[in-house]
Amino acid sequence: MPNDLQTLEALQTPCLLLDEVRLNDNVSRMKKHLAGLGVAFRPHLKTAKSLDVARIAMTSPEGPAMVSTLREAEYFAGGGVRDMIYGVGIAPGKLARVSAIRSRGVDLAIILDSVEQADAVVAHVRASGDAMPVLIEVDADGHRSGIAPSDAAALVDIGRRLTGGGAVLRGVLLHAGDSYSMNDPSALTAAAENERAAAVKAAESLRAAGLPCPVVSIGSTPTARYARNLDGVTEVRAGVFMIGDLFQAGVGSVAIDDIALTVLATVIGHQRAKGWIITDAGWMALSRDRGTARQQVDQGYGLVCDLAGRPYGEVIVADANQEHGIVAIRAGSSAALPDLPVGSRVRILPNHACATGAQHDRYHVLDARGAVGAVWPRINGW
Amino acid sequence: MPNDLQTLEALQTPCLLLDEVRLNDNVSRMKKHLAGLGVAFRPHLKTAKSLDVARIAMTSPEGPAMVSTLREAEYFAGGGVRDMIYGVGIAPGKLARVSAIRSRGVDLAIILDSVEQADAVVAHVRASGDAMPVLIEVDADGHRSGIAPSDAAALVDIGRRLTGGGAVLRGVLLHAGDSYSMNDPSALTAAAENERAAAVKAAESLRAAGLPCPVVSIGSTPTARYARNLDGVTEVRAGVFMIGDLFQAGVGSVAIDDIALTVLATVIGHQRAKGWIITDAGWMALSRDRGTARQQVDQGYGLVCDLAGRPYGEVIVADANQEHGIVAIRAGSSAALPDLPVGSRVRILPNHACATGAQHDRYHVLDARGAVGAVWPRINGW
Repeated sequence: MPNDLQTLEALQTPCLLLDEVRLNDNVSRMKKHLAGLGVAFRPHLKTAKSLDVARIAMTSPEGPAMVSTLREAEYFAGGGVRDMIYGVGIAPGKLARVSAIRSRGVDLAIILDSVEQADAVVAHVRASGDAMPVLIEVDADGHRSGIAPSDAAALVDIGRRLTGGGAVLRGVLLHAGDSYSMNDPSALTAAAENERAAAVKAAESLRAAGLPCPVVSIGSTPTARYARNLDGVTEVRAGVFMIGDLFQAGVGSVAIDDIALTVLATVIGHQRAKGWIITDAGWMALSRDRGTARQQVDQGYGLVCDLAGRPYGEVIVADANQEHGIVAIRAGSSAALPDLPVGSRVRILPNHACATGAQHDRYHVLDARGAVGAVWPRINGW
Repeated sequence: MPNDLQTLEALQTPCLLLDEVRLNDNVSRMKKHLAGLGVAFRPHLKTAKSLDVARIAMTSPEGPAMVSTLREAEYFAGGGVRDMIYGVGIAPGKLARVSAIRSRGVDLAIILDSVEQADAVVAHVRASGDAMPVLIEVDADGHRSGIAPSDAAALVDIGRRLTGGGAVLRGVLLHAGDSYSMNDPSALTAAAENERAAAVKAAESLRAAGLPCPVVSIGSTPTARYARNLDGVTEVRAGVFMIGDLFQAGVGSVAIDDIALTVLATVIGHQRAKGWIITDAGWMALSRDRGTARQQVDQGYGLVCDLAGRPYGEVIVADANQEHGIVAIRAGSSAALPDLPVGSRVRILPNHACATGAQHDRYHVLDARGAVGAVWPRINGW
């Protein structure tokens, strides 16, 4: 069946729907916001994992872009992206694969936060002749990896080993992951300022030692959204904002009406005495992500909407088995369950776009008329 | 690089390892147990999603087998499997796809638990001429779908609509999903007996009304493992047992030493002041499944082992980001963190084999010598 004849009633379920209008609007707003702050935008492609989405999100067809796996780097390189950072601390066993991608004419940079990694990179540069660019990962907020911004000695030690060994010291990179636990605009603006200040401090430590630091890269969806001043920063990264999800809505980074991703599901049964509607979208289609359980509004495994994408209100996926979703009224609500006979279709807003997307291999794209148009492939794996 | 030259040090990480010896042992034990109880074995292929694993698990190359998606049915049909049940209540919009699979010479049966579904099947049988076999889903324990075993009127109404409308009434099917919440052998044996008794009661209601019920199908990994008497049952289904996981170990269905699946990961950094080792296996590689959080022993996102597959003891993946795993000593333990420099490799036992497997597209198979041999593809999606 040609795609342009498919409708939401004809698609096999469960499947992913991507609202192109919301995607475009989310991207446009972020580009405008960051341009106003005078920084470059490096979209993180780990959420979308789609060349079609990347071409909307990037400021040019060649990038810049951020990736979370080398498989993404290979895939986007194949699609013409020429400026990427692989945003997970490099393992020595991945350096040959990085050089193979770089040999295709891609400016793929890596990140690291230890002397051991720097020494492995230098050994690889010497053996391969590939003078690869490196950013030193700095820890903005204790969230996971990175060198403390105040630890000038460690930063300079790594920087000197890299430059002395023939690698290119590209700059510093931070991710304010702790912002995900917030939901107050002033706290998020403070987190953005903390991320900026930590980045600038680390960059100044390198420069004070005579080392280069052309790139000062920060970013997370919440801090990108709430940054008010980015002096000293050269680029901002963000990814999930372009698609949005219920978790980011709980943080305050996106509005529920901006979420571009839904899972299309079919009603396959009822347990009326229990107030349950059973659908064919279980945790395999929605993901096991229950991030909203820690937020003020627990959305279960997702918020249930009609085919136009309007939430029914208090109707959530209250529980899930592998291929069964149990739809029910939110605990404590006196709302009535909608009348959805077997065969009815619903759309489910996901807790976490990165996790839900990864359960699927394609997006069915809803165009401005609300019709199902293109099918955009997406990748997974490493 | 030929597979037979790959070693655990050479594989790109993160990736899935499957221990063929444990897989074979798990399957052999279950086959022997069920043969001793006088019932047929219909392995559920939703965990493995691999033809190579299916050929080990099934009692013949043509089946029987159970699947959780029509994509699995199509894939296994392509591999020669000829006897399958699609184990999710049928949606009317999937009937044409079921018939397309059946037209390839596959005895693919469906399940349902409502008059609406039965009427849709009958309409499809009349329009298509495909007299498809149907099992009525019965609710063993209030877990999700199915008709109450005591509701003879509903069972007979559906049975008569099906047989009167030209479909084939194949029997009844139950799944004692509530057994997943147990961890006591006597409770699990009681759950297995409850599942058996409910199945037999439902079958007898159909037969008493003059309806056929040749198949009485029950199963879950815990109840299959603990069943002591299966009089009146014709077949048992189970899937996760063959691979095993920490959740099933918490239930008591498998031993930790029987778990055949691990995720191979590389150490990419440390936060020594916090007692963290950072690896490249985050929740994308391990899945978001935190099922053990509800059990007596919370395994975080997985239990960390050395390259031989021996648990370090109190070392778990305490937290995870998309592509970062944070390895730490279990809360409350005074054990010491192992010395794992950057580049070291570890193997991580997963909480849930179905969820972790679904994050990957292949198994790297560990043979009896502990060497990495074959690569077995696996499928995902719908």
